[in-house]
Amino acid sequence: MPNSPLPKYYRVRTGLEELIAARSEGEAIPAERELAARFAVSRETVRQAVHDLLVAGLIQRRGRGTVVSSPKLTQPLSLGSYTEGAISQGRVPGRELVTFEEKPATPDLAAALRIDDAAPVIHLERVLLADGQKIGLESTHLPAARFAALARTFDPAVSLYAAIRATGVVFAAATERIETVLASPREAALLDSTTATPMILLGRTSYDPAGVPIERVRSLYRGDRVAFVTTLRE
Amino acid sequence: MPNSPLPKYYRVRTGLEELIAARSEGEAIPAERELAARFAVSRETVRQAVHDLLVAGLIQRRGRGTVVSSPKLTQPLSLGSYTEGAISQGRVPGRELVTFEEKPATPDLAAALRIDDAAPVIHLERVLLADGQKIGLESTHLPAARFAALARTFDPAVSLYAAIRATGVVFAAATERIETVLASPREAALLDSTTATPMILLGRTSYDPAGVPIERVRSLYRGDRVAFVTTLRE
Repeated sequence: MPNSPLPKYYRVRTGLEELIAARSEGEAIPAERELAARFAVSRETVRQAVHDLLVAGLIQRRGRGTVVSSPKLTQPLSLGSYTEGAISQGRVPGRELVTFEEKPATPDLAAALRIDDAAPVIHLERVLLADGQKIGLESTHLPAARFAALARTFDPAVSLYAAIRATGVVFAAATERIETVLASPREAALLDSTTATPMILLGRTSYDPAGVPIERVRSLYRGDRVAFVTTLRE
Repeated sequence: MPNSPLPKYYRVRTGLEELIAARSEGEAIPAERELAARFAVSRETVRQAVHDLLVAGLIQRRGRGTVVSSPKLTQPLSLGSYTEGAISQGRVPGRELVTFEEKPATPDLAAALRIDDAAPVIHLERVLLADGQKIGLESTHLPAARFAALARTFDPAVSLYAAIRATGVVFAAATERIETVLASPREAALLDSTTATPMILLGRTSYDPAGVPIERVRSLYRGDRVAFVTTLRE
């Protein structure tokens, strides 16, 4: 209930937030045992408070210790690509290839891309990096008929949007769905994260000026490392 | 590691997802003991899978049982108010007043609203409902000097944006920050949720056509019940 006494772990969390505010980025926080003594609580209670702060991105594991994090990376919510967004925020973007294959479209995907059921699609899955840190996992599906030439020559280490635009295709609009999910074990492993860390999931379908779907993208971002910003206008 | 065997709880989760897909909204899923027997795992493993599906919003608690959820509510990411967004999605919006007070601005808030440090602000905090279900907690700060008349007559059960517009103020733009956080114990209690449920946090500052800040808003939405949608254009 709103007026019930604060749980112990939350009191420890608040204390730890003060301790973090007084430290610089990268500075270690005291070990669990020391924190338990300082706040006069069990190590289990300390662990719960530390888990909360890890999820919030205020601290992060480094080696065997725990250090104060840098602020979350902000990414613009825009029609552009991850690469363009990262550069606009002064970050060095990187990508690590996970999957690059051709396969038949599922009914759901075929409907989204307005292609025939089981028509071939290109599936490109990459880990997104910012300044060398794994922050997201992007899974893109493109109709193979339209992008066959691109698929033969595409270098998965570079911007996909730049390569698509180079084929003459123009991005005119995109619908985007934003929600929070937990990562699957596979996704958590690919992002050096855990299945208990909330992620931000962006689901996008992009359209050309004729309203034809270009791609369907599922981007999973580490909620402890990334926030999105946008400007809304009338 | 990406190629390691699937954790047991995740195998149960996948099995439960199939079971949920075969049921209708509001239908009960079997009890923990029965699921443990069916999947030949411990009750602890079932609990972990069920927790995951609760957080994902696929199932929800009802009384002493657990039932299949309706899909997440989608809210537009727009310059409009929660009320307008809910109505546009065919939902019946509601609000429950939590806090309505005048207090001095913190330095951070004063900077965002471009008013003097410790200048009075109006603080309005309301639980947002959709079709009677608690889905969000909205905390708005307005400069008291500009909105003194509004504060005297405002009915907290109606749309704040409509009341602000009625004073002649025009919303021209807003900056919005989107991230995922865990709720505090107080927030979780106000939303009939838990501190383990990821929330979507929207932080907004709205501006009038002259670029003067109108309000600063912190909106916390239940990540298991709400998703946001937007259309991006060049």
